[in-house]
Amino acid sequence: MTINVVKIGGNVIDSADALESFIKEFAQLPSPKVLVHGGGKLATAMSKKLGIETHMIDGRRVTDKETLDIVTMVYAGLVNKNIVAKLQREHCNSIGLCGADGNVIPAVRRSPVPIDFGYVGDIDAEQIDVMFIQNLLQKGITPVFCALTHDRAGDILNSNADSVTSAIAIALTRVGEVDLTFCMELPGVMRDTSDMASLISHVDADTYDALKQQGVINKGMIPKIDNAFAAVRQGVRKVIIKKADNLNRDIGTTIQ
Amino acid sequence: MTINVVKIGGNVIDSADALESFIKEFAQLPSPKVLVHGGGKLATAMSKKLGIETHMIDGRRVTDKETLDIVTMVYAGLVNKNIVAKLQREHCNSIGLCGADGNVIPAVRRSPVPIDFGYVGDIDAEQIDVMFIQNLLQKGITPVFCALTHDRAGDILNSNADSVTSAIAIALTRVGEVDLTFCMELPGVMRDTSDMASLISHVDADTYDALKQQGVINKGMIPKIDNAFAAVRQGVRKVIIKKADNLNRDIGTTIQ
Repeated sequence: MTINVVKIGGNVIDSADALESFIKEFAQLPSPKVLVHGGGKLATAMSKKLGIETHMIDGRRVTDKETLDIVTMVYAGLVNKNIVAKLQREHCNSIGLCGADGNVIPAVRRSPVPIDFGYVGDIDAEQIDVMFIQNLLQKGITPVFCALTHDRAGDILNSNADSVTSAIAIALTRVGEVDLTFCMELPGVMRDTSDMASLISHVDADTYDALKQQGVINKGMIPKIDNAFAAVRQGVRKVIIKKADNLNRDIGTTIQ
Repeated sequence: MTINVVKIGGNVIDSADALESFIKEFAQLPSPKVLVHGGGKLATAMSKKLGIETHMIDGRRVTDKETLDIVTMVYAGLVNKNIVAKLQREHCNSIGLCGADGNVIPAVRRSPVPIDFGYVGDIDAEQIDVMFIQNLLQKGITPVFCALTHDRAGDILNSNADSVTSAIAIALTRVGEVDLTFCMELPGVMRDTSDMASLISHVDADTYDALKQQGVINKGMIPKIDNAFAAVRQGVRKVIIKKADNLNRDIGTTIQ
């Protein structure tokens, strides 16, 4: 049985309507499945309400102690538990986790040199306790992960949600076939974002180089697609970029 | 093997030092064990910071939608995940849960008549999925519960932490012998709070009536001790009132 690992980010989480519609789609997705969510914009909004400045370096959040408390509240509390409660309503039995729970995703706090990102953790797929996840899946329980990990020394760490997702998918290839879906704002990689017919249904190593040269894949998409190819090289069957609405439809870009 | 169910409240959670010392004591407590925590004062402080007024009726929090979001952040995120990370440091493998996770503690939203408490859930020990908890205990994983439940209809509900603790303890009597410890500020029921020698080591139904008449047990302690006797009547072997520091010492009041 293929294990579906799905990641959602701000475009789904920040809108109550988009989240509702995603929850229904995800509940219908065949099991076994795993959900990983971000929540960065909500954390930024909460920081603002609490009068704490958000510092970003190269698009990554600097996580001082105050910010760590906020992301712990928002990701592991507000976002995670609301997703679980809504999945329960759809009869998708789920469990909300961070990497400290069951010691499932230990991480290494990033060196403060050259840039001190604070409480930020880098992870390694080999360190993930895949049997813990497999045990839940076998019981018909869907794990819902936020992108928080821990250092085994008592501190929660903030990790990149795309990296956590890939690492979980790669780790799960030890126990089964894994497909990895990143839900994005666009239906996939498109030559012209206003023309659905321009959706590129498949990207491989050769076409990727050409698409980068043509500028079709650029900026923020490049690390995401690099990340996808890395997952495929490490055993994930395919990575799919999709709009959340299309989760149960064969519309998206497959990276293989 | 006796299952130890332990509850901590604000006096432990609100102080970083008290929490640290508790974590070390709890990690040393023989397994299988379950921890349940409150967090009310932190939620009140967070509400204040966010400019949201806290309404209490008869000592119970009125949980409107904004307050529900705050308790979800503080209880299930900040407090719960920090306890788990610290227990992992002490090599006590633990998992942080609310009642929505694994559908383990479904609740019924309290009727808005005569008093509308908002998103508040009443629970029933019979509805707790004790096999889910037992499965974790058998794997050597300690569940750490915050006092949030869910209505199975998509909403998180705020429940009384003492009630959640008792219900978990009562439910676990289906699978084993259960001792229930409430960690309090005082070392137990005392005739004179300034005199350790006046600690009453044992309260039964007969002595309870006498102690109430003498005014030794009064006010806020009465519902707690009533709750303890109710747990014993429903199969819990004994309920112990202790100071958190004495968790591994035989100093406290046993209610049996």
